[in-house]
Amino acid sequence: MITVDDALGHLMALVSPLDSEQVPLIEAAGRVLATDVTARRDQPPFAASAMDGYAMRADEVEQHSIFKVIGESAAGHRFEGQVKPGQAVRIFTGAPVPAGADFVVIQEDISRSGDLITIASAPSSNANIRALGGDFKIGDRVTAPRLLNPSDIALLASMNIANVPVTRRPQVALISTGDELVMPGENPGPDQIIASNTFGLKAMLDQLGAHCRILPIARDTEASLTMGFDLAAGADLIITIGGASVGDHDLVGKVAGDLGLERSFYKVAMRPGKPLMGGRMTGAAMVGLPGNPVSAMVCGHIFIAPMIRCMLGLGAVPCSPRTASLSAPLPANGPRQHYMRAKLDQGKIRAFDRQDSALLTVLAEANALLIRPPNDPARTIGEQVAYLPL
Amino acid sequence: MITVDDALGHLMALVSPLDSEQVPLIEAAGRVLATDVTARRDQPPFAASAMDGYAMRADEVEQHSIFKVIGESAAGHRFEGQVKPGQAVRIFTGAPVPAGADFVVIQEDISRSGDLITIASAPSSNANIRALGGDFKIGDRVTAPRLLNPSDIALLASMNIANVPVTRRPQVALISTGDELVMPGENPGPDQIIASNTFGLKAMLDQLGAHCRILPIARDTEASLTMGFDLAAGADLIITIGGASVGDHDLVGKVAGDLGLERSFYKVAMRPGKPLMGGRMTGAAMVGLPGNPVSAMVCGHIFIAPMIRCMLGLGAVPCSPRTASLSAPLPANGPRQHYMRAKLDQGKIRAFDRQDSALLTVLAEANALLIRPPNDPARTIGEQVAYLPL
Repeated sequence: MITVDDALGHLMALVSPLDSEQVPLIEAAGRVLATDVTARRDQPPFAASAMDGYAMRADEVEQHSIFKVIGESAAGHRFEGQVKPGQAVRIFTGAPVPAGADFVVIQEDISRSGDLITIASAPSSNANIRALGGDFKIGDRVTAPRLLNPSDIALLASMNIANVPVTRRPQVALISTGDELVMPGENPGPDQIIASNTFGLKAMLDQLGAHCRILPIARDTEASLTMGFDLAAGADLIITIGGASVGDHDLVGKVAGDLGLERSFYKVAMRPGKPLMGGRMTGAAMVGLPGNPVSAMVCGHIFIAPMIRCMLGLGAVPCSPRTASLSAPLPANGPRQHYMRAKLDQGKIRAFDRQDSALLTVLAEANALLIRPPNDPARTIGEQVAYLPL
Repeated sequence: MITVDDALGHLMALVSPLDSEQVPLIEAAGRVLATDVTARRDQPPFAASAMDGYAMRADEVEQHSIFKVIGESAAGHRFEGQVKPGQAVRIFTGAPVPAGADFVVIQEDISRSGDLITIASAPSSNANIRALGGDFKIGDRVTAPRLLNPSDIALLASMNIANVPVTRRPQVALISTGDELVMPGENPGPDQIIASNTFGLKAMLDQLGAHCRILPIARDTEASLTMGFDLAAGADLIITIGGASVGDHDLVGKVAGDLGLERSFYKVAMRPGKPLMGGRMTGAAMVGLPGNPVSAMVCGHIFIAPMIRCMLGLGAVPCSPRTASLSAPLPANGPRQHYMRAKLDQGKIRAFDRQDSALLTVLAEANALLIRPPNDPARTIGEQVAYLPL
């Protein structure tokens, strides 16, 4: 048995950032920028009015002054002439400021009569002009790697980046194993249960940017498991669920070994999730997760999520624990690191009483995994503990 | 001008939870459960072994006791007989516990010779048996509304819910307006800029569960805007961007009014985002957002996101501000509520120096909106302020 940190180290060594692909901007949200992109234009591309009003010469701006309106500059349609002393141009938000003008008086401060305007109220000192390139200039960079959020998408649009280089999605093959499993919607026999881990893991990893394929359930035979691995061809990461423990029917380690798995480790000192295995197999990373539903999902959060982020180019960084104060005491922990299903509420955290690794109802109620280090002593209310948000 | 809270009240009155649809479980992650679902089975459906080991009668479990192994119970293949005194059944994790047995000794505590086993080590007091229905029973509920996360998906799978009733996605039509706009990938003229708001808003709202359509850019003419509204037919929410201020070319209010808009309000005492309008139009909610990129995105976070959540059935709840302590002083605020682009770092927050509502580079660097109430006095380092995470 190795520690969680050692297991993470082994797993991160199995993956590296994937190559990139171009996607249309409309599909780039939530993807990871793979290489720096540079603005194709200045923004704004001209000195632009920040308000609706009148453009004139700053040295003439004074209450009660009178100007002749000689034209209009609208967004998309600039005034082509020059603003000379005593002159003003009607201007709208986003429109180019005409040559000669360097101040915009907002229309609320103006009284107009025909082509003549008077500055009726004392204008503010703000020129209401956005300088050319004030937001960004040609060649300004958005640097990779970067998980693209909605604001980034708006920024890339305004830079005229119509196609975006992003890291391609990690291809993940999910194989659940076991004669007891049937797919949702089937009629299970009296000794059978429904395969749930592949569905939960797909939801988790797709959300992070992976593309998961759920493969047919592999039965507890060497032939069926071999077929499962065959079907996983092309995946960057092959995940098996179940069949990795010490039972006579736990064939994942043997079959994967026969197919060339170079195993990096087996068994981790943690609860839930001890019978975890990892290695390299026909060019892909391979992780064997335990079959208990909660174990599989917890290992997904602790181990698989950082592997996906690494493949996406976001760095080999494990999840960072946060801290909260206990609202219920905890007994001493045993020799394995324990990820307890817990509820975080207004900065206080308590572990659920029932921690059996088969209880999906408890996991669904949890919003945090409370982390107990190996041999952590008993803890009392108010003590600070580490947790990972779910 | 009305307050932000009043505007939110008006906007929430324009929307209500949408009807539901059935989706396959594999597509249900991130959707909102629309009606309660009930478990179609008990989980586990039988008393199940939690470990690999030997099933026997609890009253016979004692170190050095010897048993005859009479069969095997594997996951998916139960032992059909009865365990009598002096007998044991080889059993594996997840397998049904055979009749007569009520204890599983883990295999690590057993020594075996042919069909005889001896309890070699003092067994734990834990019977290692998961009771029938210990996770959930037939009829147990997952209650709506609920934003379905990966753990929920695993739980629904194990309950054998192959199709899930979810609120249908709000259909949103996004219309940017202005003669100065071109689409990303086009060659803008010297007076033109790239439409960015529709792309940023689509990324934001799709992530929340909406389905946004970006419509053709509407030009600053009544005919073009009318065509834009025609193309929005079928949307639950019509969002225009730009053209809603006081300029002569700001035609959104007029054209929408001619097409039947029942306007609930116009202008909100906030920065950025003052020229905001909302109302009801041909059966849909309509919101006119300001055209400055940052204004549009901030209004998206403050106003549109809660509308989407309400339509999804998650309640008419505005975003809940959090608090953090200032790491840089703030000047006094004016009469409008100010949403300042800010950076939150390790629990401390500071507003960016440049707050012009045209600066997408600043928005992209921000991870929070620092909220200044109207006429908030100057604030010093260390004071607590409200913010919304971005």
